Amino acid sequence: MPSTRTGSNTTASTQFIQAKNGHSYAHRRFGSGAALPLLCLQHFTGTLDNWDPAVTDPLASGREVILFDNAGVGRSTGDVPDTIAGMAGHPMAFLDALGITTCDVIGYSLGGMVALQMVQDRPSIFRRMILVGTAPRGGEDIMHLEKPSLAKHLQDPANRGYDVLRKIFFTSSAASQAAGEAFIRRISERKDDLDPPSGPKVAGAQMAAFREWEQFRGQRFADLRAIRHPALVVNGVDDEMIPVSNSYRLSENLANAVLLTYPDAGHGSLFQYPESFTRQAAAFLSSDSESAAF
Amino acid sequence: MPSTRTGSNTTASTQFIQAKNGHSYAHRRFGSGAALPLLCLQHFTGTLDNWDPAVTDPLASGREVILFDNAGVGRSTGDVPDTIAGMAGHPMAFLDALGITTCDVIGYSLGGMVALQMVQDRPSIFRRMILVGTAPRGGEDIMHLEKPSLAKHLQDPANRGYDVLRKIFFTSSAASQAAGEAFIRRISERKDDLDPPSGPKVAGAQMAAFREWEQFRGQRFADLRAIRHPALVVNGVDDEMIPVSNSYRLSENLANAVLLTYPDAGHGSLFQYPESFTRQAAAFLSSDSESAAF
Repeated sequence: MPSTRTGSNTTASTQFIQAKNGHSYAHRRFGSGAALPLLCLQHFTGTLDNWDPAVTDPLASGREVILFDNAGVGRSTGDVPDTIAGMAGHPMAFLDALGITTCDVIGYSLGGMVALQMVQDRPSIFRRMILVGTAPRGGEDIMHLEKPSLAKHLQDPANRGYDVLRKIFFTSSAASQAAGEAFIRRISERKDDLDPPSGPKVAGAQMAAFREWEQFRGQRFADLRAIRHPALVVNGVDDEMIPVSNSYRLSENLANAVLLTYPDAGHGSLFQYPESFTRQAAAFLSSDSESAAF
Repeated sequence: MPSTRTGSNTTASTQFIQAKNGHSYAHRRFGSGAALPLLCLQHFTGTLDNWDPAVTDPLASGREVILFDNAGVGRSTGDVPDTIAGMAGHPMAFLDALGITTCDVIGYSLGGMVALQMVQDRPSIFRRMILVGTAPRGGEDIMHLEKPSLAKHLQDPANRGYDVLRKIFFTSSAASQAAGEAFIRRISERKDDLDPPSGPKVAGAQMAAFREWEQFRGQRFADLRAIRHPALVVNGVDDEMIPVSNSYRLSENLANAVLLTYPDAGHGSLFQYPESFTRQAAAFLSSDSESAAF
């Protein structure tokens, strides 16, 4: 199936594909180029519409970007699995349906956990991995929305619609809040062909998956050593949702990972510094070295 | 004083300048360009000859690189101070003598601590700072050469000359050791106009400075918050000499720092990945943004 001609998530049409498992998966494909396609795996309750065009569009110059709604999210069919392992099967079936045997990936937050599970289940599925604001199995303080630093924003009735994202994805500094406003403006530009927002059923199953992902057996983080794929790990140093210590553990225990952290940035570091992030991500993806260093 | 015409630390002649404090400072200047000069502050017992041309030379395209022997090191006069604060006065007097009021800096290991002290003493002295394999005041496990993981290499009589650097600056992996051999070949290419190697007197005073730097009063790392200069913090995740946790504390507590860590790399990460390091460093130095993000 050809890419859409447009190179922006603001205007790309949503497509649907039936996989062999019977699911229909909502997705968007845009951009083109000689590089491998870049699969984008989304955060907690996020849909196709939560991908910031300032992140996706520059990366779509030189490669096809593929945004994906996991099962039960947006307009993909089925129920949301309540484990990361369950979630990992769907993008695999989706890529099989597209005929894509190997691609690059950006896994953001929940999506990073799904990407880690996918590459353990089928190492050939990815060439290079970008893991943003995420955590390994056995990570610490993963998405505890009940803690006061997050609950105060989530329970504040003044935070309507996307306002809550500005509060929980960005720091309280003026610069970070301004970047958050710009982010919300950008994701609000798309007016048609929108996904339905995620409800409590999606949130509940995804939250159960986070709780299960915090558990580990045997030596903590030992499972990461077997992943030799070049990886770029990215985080904001002030991430309250998935603390940066999880990115430290990823880059220390993955065999071949470069870590990049951003100052005065929270969970949405990639949306706060889209120019830097896409420049670094494109340089990383453009490398064909065996090493993650770029 | 004009730069030497050569753009390499392999061939640049050593120069000497008398400062107002009466000291004569050995240094090398090479490269040219429109950007601010880049002062390079060296590691424990390191002299001008320990700067890897694969790191210095690419950076000398576009700017002048200035390598500096602190007091009592190499061919600079005087005694080695036994505190970082004492060491910080010398590059300041040196830059004054050169008529340089503001420059960029690479502070590596001990040199990073000196750079941090300098910018606290005189904030205008630096525009942008690159801090490699170093630690803030109050950092942990700084240069404890007596610990078994380091002592086994330092006390091994089979490690002659630069061999010990290959063991303690690089990891035990085949790839890292091969990079270490290449590093030693590069710094061995210079045959003339060499600094005398540092002896026990230099090492003793510098080690005393490390011990003093581990001490802190008041809130740990609070002094870093006042440094708002864009900073790029770099480390290998397997650094045994100054563990990567110190770089985490730097990037978390400096107001405006990007962190970059390298996989399968020790204290000499910049020498292990000189192509990546110089590409990232040049991109960082080329930015005139108020933000460290690049």
